[in-house]
Amino acid sequence: MKLMYAFFLTPFLATLLFSIPLAAQPPGWSEIAPGVWKSTTGRPDDLDLFNAAGIKPATGALARLGPAPFPIPVEKISCEVVNGETYLRFPLEKGEQIFGFGLNFKTVMQRGRILQLHVDHYGGSDNGRTHAPVPFYVSGKGYGVFINSSRYLTIYAGTGVRRDSPEAPEEQDRNTDKNWDAQPYSDAVEVLVPAGGVEVYVFAGPTPLDAVRRFNLYSGGGCLPPRWGLGFTQRVPTLYTSDQVEQEARAFSAKGYPLDFIGLEPGWQSRSYPCTLEWDKSRYPDPATFVTTMKELGVHLNLWTNPYISSLSPLYQKILPFTGSHTVWGGVVPDLSISEARETFKDQISRSQLSIGISGYKIDESDGYDRWLWPDVARFPSGNSAEQIRQTYGLFLQRMTMELFRQNNSRTYGLTRSSNGGGASFPYVIYNDNYSHEDFITALINSGFSGVLWTPEVRSSKTGEEWLRRFQTVCFSPMAMINAWSSGTKPWSFPDVEEEIKEYALLRMQLIPYLYTEFAKYHFEGTPPFRGMNLEPGFDEGATSELKTGSLDDNPYLEAVRKEIKDQYMTGEYLLVAPLFTGQTTREVILPRGRWFDFYTGEYAGDGEIITVTPGLEKIPVFVKDGGIVPMMMPLLHTPRTGEKYDLEIRHYGTAPGVYTLYDDDGESFDYEKGFYSWRIIRVETDKKGKLNGSISKAERVRPDNIGNVTWRFMTN
Amino acid sequence: MKLMYAFFLTPFLATLLFSIPLAAQPPGWSEIAPGVWKSTTGRPDDLDLFNAAGIKPATGALARLGPAPFPIPVEKISCEVVNGETYLRFPLEKGEQIFGFGLNFKTVMQRGRILQLHVDHYGGSDNGRTHAPVPFYVSGKGYGVFINSSRYLTIYAGTGVRRDSPEAPEEQDRNTDKNWDAQPYSDAVEVLVPAGGVEVYVFAGPTPLDAVRRFNLYSGGGCLPPRWGLGFTQRVPTLYTSDQVEQEARAFSAKGYPLDFIGLEPGWQSRSYPCTLEWDKSRYPDPATFVTTMKELGVHLNLWTNPYISSLSPLYQKILPFTGSHTVWGGVVPDLSISEARETFKDQISRSQLSIGISGYKIDESDGYDRWLWPDVARFPSGNSAEQIRQTYGLFLQRMTMELFRQNNSRTYGLTRSSNGGGASFPYVIYNDNYSHEDFITALINSGFSGVLWTPEVRSSKTGEEWLRRFQTVCFSPMAMINAWSSGTKPWSFPDVEEEIKEYALLRMQLIPYLYTEFAKYHFEGTPPFRGMNLEPGFDEGATSELKTGSLDDNPYLEAVRKEIKDQYMTGEYLLVAPLFTGQTTREVILPRGRWFDFYTGEYAGDGEIITVTPGLEKIPVFVKDGGIVPMMMPLLHTPRTGEKYDLEIRHYGTAPGVYTLYDDDGESFDYEKGFYSWRIIRVETDKKGKLNGSISKAERVRPDNIGNVTWRFMTN
Repeated sequence: MKLMYAFFLTPFLATLLFSIPLAAQPPGWSEIAPGVWKSTTGRPDDLDLFNAAGIKPATGALARLGPAPFPIPVEKISCEVVNGETYLRFPLEKGEQIFGFGLNFKTVMQRGRILQLHVDHYGGSDNGRTHAPVPFYVSGKGYGVFINSSRYLTIYAGTGVRRDSPEAPEEQDRNTDKNWDAQPYSDAVEVLVPAGGVEVYVFAGPTPLDAVRRFNLYSGGGCLPPRWGLGFTQRVPTLYTSDQVEQEARAFSAKGYPLDFIGLEPGWQSRSYPCTLEWDKSRYPDPATFVTTMKELGVHLNLWTNPYISSLSPLYQKILPFTGSHTVWGGVVPDLSISEARETFKDQISRSQLSIGISGYKIDESDGYDRWLWPDVARFPSGNSAEQIRQTYGLFLQRMTMELFRQNNSRTYGLTRSSNGGGASFPYVIYNDNYSHEDFITALINSGFSGVLWTPEVRSSKTGEEWLRRFQTVCFSPMAMINAWSSGTKPWSFPDVEEEIKEYALLRMQLIPYLYTEFAKYHFEGTPPFRGMNLEPGFDEGATSELKTGSLDDNPYLEAVRKEIKDQYMTGEYLLVAPLFTGQTTREVILPRGRWFDFYTGEYAGDGEIITVTPGLEKIPVFVKDGGIVPMMMPLLHTPRTGEKYDLEIRHYGTAPGVYTLYDDDGESFDYEKGFYSWRIIRVETDKKGKLNGSISKAERVRPDNIGNVTWRFMTN
Repeated sequence: MKLMYAFFLTPFLATLLFSIPLAAQPPGWSEIAPGVWKSTTGRPDDLDLFNAAGIKPATGALARLGPAPFPIPVEKISCEVVNGETYLRFPLEKGEQIFGFGLNFKTVMQRGRILQLHVDHYGGSDNGRTHAPVPFYVSGKGYGVFINSSRYLTIYAGTGVRRDSPEAPEEQDRNTDKNWDAQPYSDAVEVLVPAGGVEVYVFAGPTPLDAVRRFNLYSGGGCLPPRWGLGFTQRVPTLYTSDQVEQEARAFSAKGYPLDFIGLEPGWQSRSYPCTLEWDKSRYPDPATFVTTMKELGVHLNLWTNPYISSLSPLYQKILPFTGSHTVWGGVVPDLSISEARETFKDQISRSQLSIGISGYKIDESDGYDRWLWPDVARFPSGNSAEQIRQTYGLFLQRMTMELFRQNNSRTYGLTRSSNGGGASFPYVIYNDNYSHEDFITALINSGFSGVLWTPEVRSSKTGEEWLRRFQTVCFSPMAMINAWSSGTKPWSFPDVEEEIKEYALLRMQLIPYLYTEFAKYHFEGTPPFRGMNLEPGFDEGATSELKTGSLDDNPYLEAVRKEIKDQYMTGEYLLVAPLFTGQTTREVILPRGRWFDFYTGEYAGDGEIITVTPGLEKIPVFVKDGGIVPMMMPLLHTPRTGEKYDLEIRHYGTAPGVYTLYDDDGESFDYEKGFYSWRIIRVETDKKGKLNGSISKAERVRPDNIGNVTWRFMTN
């Protein structure tokens, strides 16, 4: 079809044709939003990911992305039901790379891999078992595919070779052919859906980032956290009392470290594992007063819980009729696919916690792992299978709590152990127990392909160097968190790097206007605020295969090992972040095509090249695109509250003119959903003398206008 | 039911009752052989493991094991079909340990583990993906359970905790309870069969070893290799020519190293990966003469192949109609569940190879791994699913080739990459590309629970120490193999241990009468010749839980780590083998209750205790039970041919009298199936003066009688 248009239609006519969706419908597919197609095979399950997430597609924003042709040769797609299972096939061109399939920790490029998508803790290898095994992939050719199933899907991401494929590779003779390939060329992504039917969605580009945007927007748009959610957070030891928590907040303030919210660990509950979801009166004798005091100190509170209910909880008897056949740590397992179960659960946390001003949750252990979760032979009262409940549990928990906060017109920003496709709009960040700094960065990159957020939290460290290196990354991530539930570590726990830590904590605070705007773009435009280089225009993948050295004894099939870029990423529109890990003093950074400048000095760094940097322990390398505009605020200890004015320092990098649209709203409520927000245009232009000048437009619709004085810094001279 | 008998029946009446099977039938179960029950739930698949293996239960031998009561409280078993899947549950008592689930490499005790049984290469952890993921487990309480399914079964081996279980554990409060358990007590093995029905088998004891015996006998009895199969084997580099192979054999002989068969690697074929299954005429210009010459040198030949057929093979056009939708390395994949496909395949190898005297195969890559095997969305002409073909492929390959050798009345003994439940009678040993000496021993132990054989082959080593340590183990394993396909290593490649290697190679040859008899017991009585200590009477499991030390940061759920015995094993009736690994100079050995003696010196070693040994590099510790009788022969360079006489040295250990039944037959043909074999009684008794005296009965039925002179060695004074 693509070919046909190329021959017979002028570009103008083609555009016209695509603006009339019906005419462009490929057989078996219906365009349900501009650039979004759906196809149904067989009889899909009642429970799928999109309806578990309760998505509300952002149709307006999708319309703004404009029409696009169906991006895949439709005749090369195959969907069929075979013996009660559904087999899917989507073509792959030669040289095409694909990304996604959820929160992987080791790999970025997914072509040639096999995954069984299964919500689980991350067990050390990318086999599909992860906290968010999102069945969505995006192609380097600029389109995305989503399989809307709540089943464990087996994905063959370009491995199977069909006998009858027109592009089947030639046979080779391993006896004599030195180029014999253990993995011959495969021309398709194949998927096994263990159910009698499924819905599949295709998202158009034209760029890979556009395909991701459409996927996120169709899921409802990315989440917009409250402004305080982007500030600094500390999680305190599990048996802390309210007095100790208050002292912790005062210590941050006294020492000059920013702090926006504190997370309480299991000890806030009267029992945990399983949970009562009630305050422990010995450690927290007066929760309401405690929450108020903390708010006066400028600190919100986040509560750990898991969803497994103790027989001693006031919720127990009410939720019991809606629970599964198996227990988790002796707690009953609510069937959250039943709306009444969710309402019952909401009622408990609303009365005990939201009513006194609790701001969010860390929802633990919804992912697994298998050894303590319900088995796949468990039964649930909804009749949904244990597998389906497992795949959607994180979605339901996020949805349930977000709905409650929305009812209170107060945004939340919390932590979840699991999510899945369709969850982009949920204000939750995924975390886990793994503690590899390198893997954390790879996960941050992968989160951007899959409509989820991930935090490379910092927990403990062996040395000040490690502490600082991890902390630097955390400051360029969706949630700036120290998770001290076990170790009790403070930002100042390593005296040798105490000042450097403070500097980065404050830099995080300065970046809030930029980060908040980038999250607004996630919400309104679908652009992930943290994302891999492969979504960046001008980035050459640098994808090469390397033959693993070593003997045939060790590597009998002479398997090639791929090289992929998984240690640098984009934060928002302009910032390229390239962390160093413990022990490193120097590293290579791949700068995409276009001129790039040092974030700290404004100096020219390179253009479409690999540079080597030796930044010193006190710096994490960050680079800014030519013309990049980064709006920053003063280094406050708490993010501004609703109506609190803050001054802006607008930085410009490079020599090119630039434009940035700065988002603002009240920072806390859901009123932005009713239109109470503004986009200001920040513009840097060259005057007749060649000098750079900046301007910023007035706020519209935001009441009151929060921005005070504006100063300009042209970083590159 | 057990309880009822205890109260109401005298032992005599109970025995009487059980000798009338029908009266003892537990509801839903039928006794199909003495101590073997079957239950059918739903509508099982047409293709299952037992019918893929084509088992012929050894009913006579099962009858000799005698009647036994149904070993599980039947009311605690649950089998039901739920939404097209089958859920099974079998009870577990407190303190009950279970073993099996196929060829695991890291673990022996399976309680508390979750596995998805899936034929695959072994990927580094025991998650159910292995070369022989046999759905059979044996309980320490003395019974076995087999799930006769060709599906990927998910096994919850005592992890799920049902809300309504009468033995559900008490809730704990992790906030304050130091004994909080991440894995609360579970009272059942639960299994998910992804099919609408299944057959389940229960095997009675009374001992765990009896349950294993019944399973093996129901599968047809263990394999009986030809005598030469237990001799020494070398696999030569892949591009060797017939001249080089002949030189290799002559070199072994000249240097005085035993050799019974040589394995040719892919280069014997005109093309490989995919395979033509035809000789390469440049490297093997006259295969028939070559095979004859080798036989004259006393050396049989084994041929590597995989089952994926090249378009250049004479087999290609004939097999094409019976092949699957996907290729492997460009080769077509025969659907071996179709009998015509097997016959076509057999015809090719019969004409090209068996007809000129080839003695066996190494059948490679029938296991996986996923990246190059057919995907689960592949289609096969039989209509069986790709999953089912995957689970049974190793069985069909073994069955097909064994049938061919049986037609020729010439036994074979070869290598396979995969097997499954029901394959005990196939004369194949499993191997893989993993190369951990420790894991190899654990696999050897696990092979004994599952009706498969495994070889801890030796391939290459960094040092003479490693070479010798690996080699010592190989000599006490089902196949004494050096796999030099890549490295070309010879037994004498490490001059510093050349003599010690020769000594063990010759010891292997001396042990042939004992090993051959132990294999005969595998065949006629079901007793695995190599097995773990947990099947040994008098062995205390030494199973303890240890809390992993370290911080909550590293181990947030405070998971207990189990201690299990996976580095010592039994070879045949009397020998306990305790290998040392590279770097070890000393180790602990657990001696079961009863007096044990050093194999080399006859000295007393201990009784029901843990001893520490420091054997020196030149020895692998081996211990013999009190009264143990080990018939040995002279250290020949080739095992005796049919009719060739050999002298016996019969060793006795300890101070107790003993009896051993020595097996013999022609060593090569299938005539033993028609009764042409003998069991001689070797008896050591104490005379009136307290002196030990030995006697051996005459051979019966074997023509001719192979045993020459008999000498006696009473090892313990």
